Amino acid sequence: MNFASRLDNVETSAIRELFKLLGKPGIISFAGGFPDAAMFDVEGIRESVNKALQQEAGGALQYGATEGYEPLREQLSAFMASKGVAVAADGLIVTTGSQQALDLIGKTMISPGDKVIVEGPTFLATIQCFRLYGADIISAPIDENGVKVDVLEQLIVEHKPKFVYLIPTFGNPSGRMLSLERRKRVLELAVNHETLIVEDDPYGDLYFGEPPPPSILSLCAQQPGAREWVAHCGSLSKVLSPGLRVGWMVAPPELLAKATMCKQFSDAHTSTFAQATAAQYLKSGRMPATLAKVRKTYAERAAAMGAALKRELGDAIEFTQPQGGLFFWARLTGANGRISDANEFAKKAIEEKVAFVPGAPFFATNPDLSTLRLSFATADVAKIEEGVGRLGKAMG
Amino acid sequence: MNFASRLDNVETSAIRELFKLLGKPGIISFAGGFPDAAMFDVEGIRESVNKALQQEAGGALQYGATEGYEPLREQLSAFMASKGVAVAADGLIVTTGSQQALDLIGKTMISPGDKVIVEGPTFLATIQCFRLYGADIISAPIDENGVKVDVLEQLIVEHKPKFVYLIPTFGNPSGRMLSLERRKRVLELAVNHETLIVEDDPYGDLYFGEPPPPSILSLCAQQPGAREWVAHCGSLSKVLSPGLRVGWMVAPPELLAKATMCKQFSDAHTSTFAQATAAQYLKSGRMPATLAKVRKTYAERAAAMGAALKRELGDAIEFTQPQGGLFFWARLTGANGRISDANEFAKKAIEEKVAFVPGAPFFATNPDLSTLRLSFATADVAKIEEGVGRLGKAMG
Repeated sequence: MNFASRLDNVETSAIRELFKLLGKPGIISFAGGFPDAAMFDVEGIRESVNKALQQEAGGALQYGATEGYEPLREQLSAFMASKGVAVAADGLIVTTGSQQALDLIGKTMISPGDKVIVEGPTFLATIQCFRLYGADIISAPIDENGVKVDVLEQLIVEHKPKFVYLIPTFGNPSGRMLSLERRKRVLELAVNHETLIVEDDPYGDLYFGEPPPPSILSLCAQQPGAREWVAHCGSLSKVLSPGLRVGWMVAPPELLAKATMCKQFSDAHTSTFAQATAAQYLKSGRMPATLAKVRKTYAERAAAMGAALKRELGDAIEFTQPQGGLFFWARLTGANGRISDANEFAKKAIEEKVAFVPGAPFFATNPDLSTLRLSFATADVAKIEEGVGRLGKAMG
Repeated sequence: MNFASRLDNVETSAIRELFKLLGKPGIISFAGGFPDAAMFDVEGIRESVNKALQQEAGGALQYGATEGYEPLREQLSAFMASKGVAVAADGLIVTTGSQQALDLIGKTMISPGDKVIVEGPTFLATIQCFRLYGADIISAPIDENGVKVDVLEQLIVEHKPKFVYLIPTFGNPSGRMLSLERRKRVLELAVNHETLIVEDDPYGDLYFGEPPPPSILSLCAQQPGAREWVAHCGSLSKVLSPGLRVGWMVAPPELLAKATMCKQFSDAHTSTFAQATAAQYLKSGRMPATLAKVRKTYAERAAAMGAALKRELGDAIEFTQPQGGLFFWARLTGANGRISDANEFAKKAIEEKVAFVPGAPFFATNPDLSTLRLSFATADVAKIEEGVGRLGKAMG
């Protein structure tokens, strides 16, 4: 059978093979990108779906508008407003997880050969998703304050990309937070170079101390013309439940209309059953308490992991302590002749029954082989201590 | 903003404008493609979701495998077996409605410029979906027994298509049932010409009298090598609830693997919340009674519509009485100088407060302007009588 030529641009995730090892008994895994299922508000979701089936079974079980279930669009508009962003209900569409928002942006925007700039490193499934549409991916480097905006400007001028994709707040895998100053500069670049910025923001609500700077979308209010050049992807996956597959996308009207047309032929609409449940949940007022609980738990785990990494690995590793999200992004220093290759370290770690993900696959170009990603989301503090201890043994 | 070149191949559904008129008060609509929400087994779904949240909340709310939620794959395998098709759980993937199965087939198979053969007429969203991937769509004509297989063979030889897409059983919009003899012939063509057949089967369970002939997929058992050339799309949308967005796709292993990779970057996976609910529903054993009820109701409505059309429109219209599904497909004869253009008739019908969909948009090429589609699914018998009476007035 002859498959489509677009498949030549991608391969199945390089880290999938690793994930097959994780089922082994006794492994402590820092490899996943999942939230902790133990923190799902099952009772709140149960109440919400029962209310939806009681009050609006027709809507919750029938075909719905491609743009999204109206009560959910209204609740998401209110949710955005609670974070300081004015988005009308018809200024967003509901997507099947924010992964679908990325897919729709790719389908709507990318012609084969188009350039797209992403952070190096960035979310693996984004790279593959855009490549399937024929994108030529360019990486912009990051430092502890997120993407380097001076280099980003040079790359925009040089490559004239179709758009720039950023995860500015506690990004996967870097965990970095783009500074307020840089966020403003990104918006200036968008307007000056007439370049679309795609802001992916699934982690912004998962801050541990002070809230992060306003999203790039919300900063548009301060920059004339900027709103025309910003698309924003949100998600309930990391804060409520990934299984609902409820994300959303805010974008300029024309892009939103074209993405809606593409969505019509992608999956007709997102599950109204899940949408009505999510709408009832947001309406129930339980979200602030859920967020507070999730933040507190992840903050404890992140603190424990940071301390343990310093204690167990010392100068063999360097990292920026994350202020939110699910991930540590670290670099093996090779100090005193210790392991500097993350793949080699991953193999030794598996022998010690602890897993993480080497960082190289997260780079669209020029992979840094000494990097790695560690998630602190799904292991409790005791397991984190134990797992990082095993990492220490693996490092030797 | 410059959008992707693939968007040049499609436009928003031509019938969308019509649908905007349907909200008008007092309109009786035969225009929709929806099942009747009054027939949804709300109680059964409520019990199923509660059971899922009680027994497997972690799985139902967490990220899941791209291929589908294992308990649902097993239930779907059993559901297929109950219809006489042996498909292992890992021989199918779960999709976000069968619309996504079509999208994944397009993404996986179609390179720009590839030929794809469909029935003329066929499902509108399929045409658009495949065109978005750059397909050049060829139409094969139908008669009262479905696609004309002799013409289909000529077209396969002439165009060497990437695949042939058929809705053999009570198709949208034609309502036709491909005869057993022709199904077997289609399989011979698939094997002889090494051409993939995509069988879309959302309506096969909605038969009114005798069950339809076995699906093309199930006939593969009788034709050596045929299973290598058949993909099959199933759906719970028409028989249980479209709002769940649960469909599935059976295909040869390599195609299934590539489609799974594409799905990973399309929406990661279908809502596990909906999948776990559907799995519990199928497990509950309620499906046979639900199907019996739905079949009986639609059979009554189809009979009422057929009789009313004959009575009210006489020789101004011709059609084949459907033996299942949701649709009448009819042609205006223009006999005795009466209206033969379905668009003109649709306008007059709206003035009389009754709506249907002109058939032209369902043809990828060479539209027959005298055709129309009437759904009997959502109006009860009294409304059908009243609505067809109005059609009689509109015809004059």
